[in-house]
Amino acid sequence: MASSKQTTSHKLTSVDARAIAEAHNRIQPHIHRTPILTSQSLNTIAGAQLFFKCENLQKTGSFKIRGASNAILSLTDREAANGVVTHSSGNHGAAVACAASWRGIPARIVMPHNAPAVKCRAVESYGGEILFCEAKVSSRMAMAARIQAETGAAMIHPYDDDRIIAGQATAAKEFLEEISDLDALLTPVSGGGLLSGTCLGAKSLREDVHVFGCEPERADDAYRSLKTGELQTMESSDTIADGLRASLSQRTFAILRTLVDGIVLVTEEEIISAARLVAERMKLIVEPSSSIAIAPLLRPKGVGVLNLPARKDGKPLKIGIIFSGGNVDLAGLR
Amino acid sequence: MASSKQTTSHKLTSVDARAIAEAHNRIQPHIHRTPILTSQSLNTIAGAQLFFKCENLQKTGSFKIRGASNAILSLTDREAANGVVTHSSGNHGAAVACAASWRGIPARIVMPHNAPAVKCRAVESYGGEILFCEAKVSSRMAMAARIQAETGAAMIHPYDDDRIIAGQATAAKEFLEEISDLDALLTPVSGGGLLSGTCLGAKSLREDVHVFGCEPERADDAYRSLKTGELQTMESSDTIADGLRASLSQRTFAILRTLVDGIVLVTEEEIISAARLVAERMKLIVEPSSSIAIAPLLRPKGVGVLNLPARKDGKPLKIGIIFSGGNVDLAGLR
Repeated sequence: MASSKQTTSHKLTSVDARAIAEAHNRIQPHIHRTPILTSQSLNTIAGAQLFFKCENLQKTGSFKIRGASNAILSLTDREAANGVVTHSSGNHGAAVACAASWRGIPARIVMPHNAPAVKCRAVESYGGEILFCEAKVSSRMAMAARIQAETGAAMIHPYDDDRIIAGQATAAKEFLEEISDLDALLTPVSGGGLLSGTCLGAKSLREDVHVFGCEPERADDAYRSLKTGELQTMESSDTIADGLRASLSQRTFAILRTLVDGIVLVTEEEIISAARLVAERMKLIVEPSSSIAIAPLLRPKGVGVLNLPARKDGKPLKIGIIFSGGNVDLAGLR
Repeated sequence: MASSKQTTSHKLTSVDARAIAEAHNRIQPHIHRTPILTSQSLNTIAGAQLFFKCENLQKTGSFKIRGASNAILSLTDREAANGVVTHSSGNHGAAVACAASWRGIPARIVMPHNAPAVKCRAVESYGGEILFCEAKVSSRMAMAARIQAETGAAMIHPYDDDRIIAGQATAAKEFLEEISDLDALLTPVSGGGLLSGTCLGAKSLREDVHVFGCEPERADDAYRSLKTGELQTMESSDTIADGLRASLSQRTFAILRTLVDGIVLVTEEEIISAARLVAERMKLIVEPSSSIAIAPLLRPKGVGVLNLPARKDGKPLKIGIIFSGGNVDLAGLR
């Protein structure tokens, strides 16, 4: 586990409890308050009390609608006049297309040519226009910047944006509003929007809650960044967790350096078998980018992998897991 | 649609609002209050506001734990002394095994040899003892009766039992407690425990709510019974909806004759494509015996298939669907 907690404040973000509450008020009429489910058989495997925030059941099938709708609904009319543009491996693209349709403005989505078909169909179903690019982070960003310059569209970055981070933080806010004494929260980490939002959303409500990111071994830039104390990037990755192929930005890295309690690396095999177990035991379809957040707890040590202090009430640790999305081609479940 | 509503009272059951409330109090500490989910894209297809009560997310993966736990927890110590026995195509067996384990008594489950492997594993995982029989209703019942005679175990019939029906009725009670102005409820129908419980649970709270059963064309005994006014039985069926191969009893038939608004027949193809659509759009795994309850609304006429009067508020009809279970071999999703 990589961890390099700093005591310096994270100056690269304006996201605080107030911004998160404002985001929540803004988006609540439009999104689902997703259920928090439990599973006795997964509790037994992990040796903990697990709580699952089901953002796979969220509108557009992932948490991404939280940040995207917060960003798009807070644009001024002038900012929104030429529509929006973004680059995304899929779920953020669908979320931007959906939130743009609520606002009645066009959305242009730059996607890597190897994005799953189910995610492309989703963007189109919300009326978004897809523009394919090479499967490299730099290609995505360059094409999105060009479109922004040409069209005057507002850029809705998938994570390097305080409005996005404040929106993603609302999932942790809802989580702690319902299960107030969670010991720790686990989320996937890719660009760091959900993980940094979860740190801010959770710790602004309860400073002593632990927050961990789960990252594919094959896309371990956040792990290396935290370990070395310097932002590490990654041009591409072939992890099955197609939503986790992006790298941290300076903004999300700064937040994580200050607030995250650790990054846990997960193998491809662990990601796949976790998705299968969730389908079998919980009857829920989660995408590989999402099953990763339960995977570490399925190891022989169970919750021991997190090295957390015992609870004062002597009960098993209470661990919250954000199931971030469910957009997977069904063939992938085999 | 078959319907033969009688004005005579249903004398074969003692299940009333009070019995249902008592059942609810008895089982609530042990079961999940399952979430009620919505899906904009399914609303669009059906032309209605759909609400899905997710009993696939219930303990043991189906609503059957409601009736089984009500029956087993209300046994006297003397009645429970020699354990319990039942016959079941799967979900009721797992539920009986689970509730018996809560009570610390043995459970013997007679299952047809062609029951899905996932359902056999579930029974075993709760410590139940499986006894296989021929895939005929008469074989199941004969073997269970023999075991009852030999062991003195208490028979927990899957549906021909007021304690079971009262337990199953609690799903509709929870449904109307949360969505009080539903126009109609749809459930699968097999032996009629869930459907008769839903009629009693829903109509004891709001007399004017409509209740429909959905039944495989290939196992249409309830449809024929309602149509002819005489109980029709069925020795076996090869429908993919493995939980819907049983026939009504005199008790459930009497309740349905009085209270159900109709039975809709569904083809095998409709059952399968409904399960796929639910997985894709809702990220939920529902078994074929469960997807059948949404299938009629996916036809070109949408909710029009139910011939319901329009709502007084001019809004789209509000239809509640009970997703009864999620225990399916994952290969079945392909």
